[in-house]
Parts: sequence; structure tokens; C-alpha cells
Amino acid sequence: MQTAAAVADFRTYPLISALAGVQVLEDQIRVRWADGRVSPFHHQWLRDNCPCPECVYNVTREQVLEIVDVDENLRAISARIDQGFLSVEWSGGHHSQYDPGWLRAHAYDDDSRAERKSAKPKSKLWDNRFELPVFDYAAVMEDPKALLKWLLALRDSGLTQIRGVPTEPGSLALIAKRISFIRESNFGVLFNVQSKANADSNAYTAFNLPLHSDLPTRELQPGLQFLHCLVNDADGGESIFVDGFAIANALRTEDPEAFRALCEIPVEFRNKDRHSDYRRLAPIIALDALGEVAEIRMANFLRGPFEAPVEQMPLLYRAYRRFIAMTREDRFRLVKRLNPGELWCFDNRRTLHARNAFDPTSGARHFQGCYIDRDELLSRILVLQR
Amino acid sequence: MQTAAAVADFRTYPLISALAGVQVLEDQIRVRWADGRVSPFHHQWLRDNCPCPECVYNVTREQVLEIVDVDENLRAISARIDQGFLSVEWSGGHHSQYDPGWLRAHAYDDDSRAERKSAKPKSKLWDNRFELPVFDYAAVMEDPKALLKWLLALRDSGLTQIRGVPTEPGSLALIAKRISFIRESNFGVLFNVQSKANADSNAYTAFNLPLHSDLPTRELQPGLQFLHCLVNDADGGESIFVDGFAIANALRTEDPEAFRALCEIPVEFRNKDRHSDYRRLAPIIALDALGEVAEIRMANFLRGPFEAPVEQMPLLYRAYRRFIAMTREDRFRLVKRLNPGELWCFDNRRTLHARNAFDPTSGARHFQGCYIDRDELLSRILVLQR
Repeated sequence: MQTAAAVADFRTYPLISALAGVQVLEDQIRVRWADGRVSPFHHQWLRDNCPCPECVYNVTREQVLEIVDVDENLRAISARIDQGFLSVEWSGGHHSQYDPGWLRAHAYDDDSRAERKSAKPKSKLWDNRFELPVFDYAAVMEDPKALLKWLLALRDSGLTQIRGVPTEPGSLALIAKRISFIRESNFGVLFNVQSKANADSNAYTAFNLPLHSDLPTRELQPGLQFLHCLVNDADGGESIFVDGFAIANALRTEDPEAFRALCEIPVEFRNKDRHSDYRRLAPIIALDALGEVAEIRMANFLRGPFEAPVEQMPLLYRAYRRFIAMTREDRFRLVKRLNPGELWCFDNRRTLHARNAFDPTSGARHFQGCYIDRDELLSRILVLQR
Repeated sequence: MQTAAAVADFRTYPLISALAGVQVLEDQIRVRWADGRVSPFHHQWLRDNCPCPECVYNVTREQVLEIVDVDENLRAISARIDQGFLSVEWSGGHHSQYDPGWLRAHAYDDDSRAERKSAKPKSKLWDNRFELPVFDYAAVMEDPKALLKWLLALRDSGLTQIRGVPTEPGSLALIAKRISFIRESNFGVLFNVQSKANADSNAYTAFNLPLHSDLPTRELQPGLQFLHCLVNDADGGESIFVDGFAIANALRTEDPEAFRALCEIPVEFRNKDRHSDYRRLAPIIALDALGEVAEIRMANFLRGPFEAPVEQMPLLYRAYRRFIAMTREDRFRLVKRLNPGELWCFDNRRTLHARNAFDPTSGARHFQGCYIDRDELLSRILVLQR
């Protein structure tokens, strides 16, 4: 049993509880469910969500109705339960019918909202005891279930490794495209991480790189970063990872004032060469609408001079020093050497990465990398879960 | 006269005012300029911004020093003016020297900050009397000055037209790449806007499309949108534009409560087909760090059911209706028919666009479109301005 709206969504809405009673009030319809829950639905809301073919175009499954074309004082003339559906007659003549599964899934009484909030996926924080989720290249390439498992680990833990990847240059694109198209940047579609004489970033030297996110100079930092090892004969160059969300949450507990400063005082990051000049002013820690840590923006070597009011400057330095000091604490750090045929895939806005210095005279070292955004990861997960 | 730091920036810092006096205090150095301004610089800040080759790698021009490696209680032992430069001896032995032009450009006393804030480019709001900035394809392709003029109009007004563009499919990519690489989406690198039988969006029907931004279902909506007309023989299909920033600012004055609701209550936008399922919860109006309107997110046909607390729902509907009603007011609307060889380029996060219904039986209509992000626009402008 599903209405056009349920189909439109490419989702089905199981019947959680049947409609048991309906009451028309001044500006809303009050629905009572068989399990006792009561959900108010405003007349405007119900009319806005009418799933009939006049209101929703059934080919694109997109709304054609614009609520502003409906009378602001629209009222339900009558509402009843009809074969399990909520059936409403509107002043002015329109008729609407709502699937009870769909209606329950979109109810906005406090209980229903709390229920949906608690069902949302949560980040699993980790430290140096993290059991790295490792996946097999062939399985991920062929089996949609293995693919989904990998993507869920990426979403929830933000750090994964794939083994058994071919070591021909460009192979990375094949596995990236199992998720989606690649996000291009001024460094290309695939970028080569090698020590270069004329480096345009410290990433392309043999230096150690402190813990950082890539492209903090952009309004939207890339969501996923891939690093694929083709050759690794040089001494040194181990990868280091920390869970930036775990550090931010620890800071929130251990030094709330420093945490707030990093959430509130914007800092400029910049990256420039002969052909580009990227600059972005943003706080180091970003929170989502619910106040949870949603993003870390950090790369000391791409940071501009702090530009805060004079009286905030000592606090900003104290907070910044503290955060960097925490990224160096053993309790958070995972250190691993990547071998040819292995790749890292991690949430670039959460999992900070670093590299130990390596000795370019001791052997060759060649990694390739690319980016994909969180939007594409989440879309792919939803499609695989259908 | 410029130090390594000034070179690192690819910018030069003219001498605005000479250093006239230097005083070392407990945690800062107080600089007096020849024009009377006084700028405090904290010891931590100065040490952090030391431009010497030990602290900044001169090939990549990126910082190697991490301030956390410097003593938290670092103090200047002495500071003096040396051949116009600020010269500082640090406890622990390091020596730093700062170009007075660079130092003035980064001073963070109140006057210097206010001066820089007021020098930032500001949006020029427009209404139905807007004199559309029109540019010539050949000039923009060949002349960097014409290119810069176009990009500044895009940045400041958010709506431009180019004429004389070849009408071969794919030509759009040539002009887009004058700015940067193109941002791909699930609709492709270049997308074709044509009426299709099996449309996966109302954009690909012959319906009228209400005023909207593209891809409000993504965390970062595309910054620039191009729409290039190859064929336009069908009756109807005129383009309509409004300055979403102008409408948001008018709403802010005329109905502050509605404005706040659209800034604060997040709304879900979604777009799904057999291969993708994009969802994004975000407010319709986003403000920047200074409280200025920075983004409009709006597409009624891609909006999901509102999910706000019961007591907020009437206000949300009132605010939403009011905003949509304003987009329909003549005072804001610019209506123009696009001819073959012309293209629109506009700020997709500011300038809402719409299309009148057209009659696909009356003739062919074929547009191509693509996206580029604001980051790339701003980078290109900075490089052209060097």
C-alpha cells in the first residue's frame, strides 16, 4: 500500500501503526495512531504535501504545486480514515489522500521527531587502538554488499584501507568511480604525490607534513580523500592519522573555552601558485545544526596570519597551540606504512592525515590521490540501501 | 622592498606608512606608525609569522615552523627599526625581520581591521531596472582585461550575459575554462536542457519552472551557472531572474520575523532518480560571518516536507509563502528571451532563475549548461589582478 508520494521518494514506508482517529481543528488535523501517539498536521502542511498527480508530476516525481497558490486561510472541510488512508476535503474543492506509512514517517510531533533524530547514523569516534576497517579490492569492485559495507565504514568511522589494488597508475579512478565521479581541483582529477624539485606545495616535497586536511582553502573541503600507493621503496614516509572529531570532542571536555574559540574565530587558509590563488576564512571546527562536530579545517602550512581583534589573539593562540599539541598526543595517533597495492580512503573533513619525512635518495615513492564529496558518498549509500 | 613573506604571497605590499616607534611590552610589541596609528602585535603572532627561510620553505612559500614548537612564554628581548624593517630578537635565540608594508597590511588593531573590512568587495543589489552587463565572446576569450571585467561583474552583480558564442554543442566548455575547470554533477559535466519524455527532473520538461537555485540538494550549491542557447525556435520559454540577495534584504526590512525563520529553520531539499539520492537539510537563507546574506537555497520542486517543531510550523509556512510571493513581484523580476549564440552566466547561490513554459511542438529548444564554484571565480580574479 503506497501512494504516489511514497513512490516519488524511491522509498517504501511500512505501516508502523494504523490511523485510529482524526479530528479537524482550526488550523490543523489531529491524528491519533493505533499505538496511542498523537500527531498534529497543519492544514498548510497537508495541502502542501498532497501526492495527487495534479500536485506532483508523476514522471519526474517532483512537486508542481506551489503552496503560495493555495489560499492562506485554507481549511479542511472534513477528514476521515478511508481504507486505512487519511482522506481530506479542502475548502475550495481539492481532495487529498495520505498513505499512513508515509504520514507516520513524516509526522512532526515531538516524539516522532525525537525518534527520527535518534535513528540517524552517528560517528564512531576512535583513538590509537582503532581496528582499522580493511576491505578487499576485488570484493568492493564486484559485490554491491561489500561496497556498501566499505561505504558505511567510511561514513561512520572516517578511515578505511583497501588492499589488492592494481599498481598501474590511474587504477585509483576505477575504485573511486564505484562511488561516483571524482571531484576535480587545481591539482587535477588524479594527483601524483611525489617529491618534486619545483614543488607548488609542501605535499610535493620529502618533508614531514603535520596533521592536516586537504584543500582547507576551499569553501567546501573535499569530503573523501583517496591515497593509493604505487611504489614505496623510500625510507620513512609513514602515514599518520587522527580522528579529528575525537580530538575536538576531547578538547570540548578538557578546555571548553579553547573549543569555543576554534568554533567561533575564523582563520584564513590560502594556497597560491602562478595560476591560482585560493583563500578561505573559516573557523577550524564547524558544528552541524544540532551542535555536533561536523568538520575540522586544518593545515598549518596553508594558514595565513591570524586576524582577530587584539583582545582575542592570546586566546586564539592558546586554543590553536592546544589543538595542535593534541594531534601530537600518542593516545590519538595511528601510524602505518602503506604498501604498494594498498590505498587509504578517509573523510578528509574529519580524519586528519600526516606523513613522516622520507629520504628520496633511498628509493622511489609514488602515491596517487583523488577526492569525492560527502554528498556523493551519502547518495551512493542510499541507492545501495534501496 | 619586500621580504620572503611578501613574495610568498604573490602580492606586493606598498609602504603605506613608515615605522616610527617600537615598544616591547609583556606579551606584545607596540608599533607606532608615521601617520600616528598604533598597532599591537603579540609576541606569539610575530614569531608565528617570521618570514625567514628557516620558518618558510622558499620553494613552496609555505610555512615549515609550527608555533607549538616555540615556547609558550616566548618574549622579545629587543625590537628596533632597522633600515625601515621591524627587527626582533627572541628569547631562545631566533631573529626575525618584518617588512613594514606587509606588517601594516596584516595589523589587527581596530582601525586596520575596519579599514580592510570596508575595502572588501560588496554585492551590488539590483531589481527590474537592472542594466544587464553584457560581454562579447571574442573579447572575453582573448583579452585578459575583458575577462576580468566580466568576472568582476559576476562577483558583484551575480548576473551577466555573453553574446557571439558559437552555437556548436560543447562550445560552452571553452568559455567556462577561461575561468577554471568545470564542476561535474550527476547530470554530467555539460548538461543538456531539453524537454524529454523520460525526464528525471522538471527542468527537462516543457513546464514553467518557478524561481530556484540549482542543486540545492548539495552541501555546497554550485557557485556559477552557465546556460548557453544553441537553438530557441519554440514559443515561450523566456528566462526570468531575480536578485535573491535583494529579496532577502527587502524581507529583512519588511518582515524581520519571517527573515529570521528562513535563516534559522532548516529545510530538506532532495533529488533522486534510479542512480542517485541527494538530500540536504539547510536553511533557505545563509548569512556570512559578518551577518550579510551570502546564499539563497530554493527550489520548490525539490523541497521535502517541512520538519520543524509543531509550534514553528505556522511561522515557517508564513515566511516561505512570503518569500515565494516576493520572487513573483514585478519590482524584482527581469524577463528576457535568450537567443542562439547567447549565454547567461550567473551566481547560482544568489540569482534565482526561472523559465516560462514553452510549447515543444512549436519548434526546437536546446540549451547547454554547466557549473563552476565561487572558489574558482575568486581565485581567477586574484590571479588576473596580480
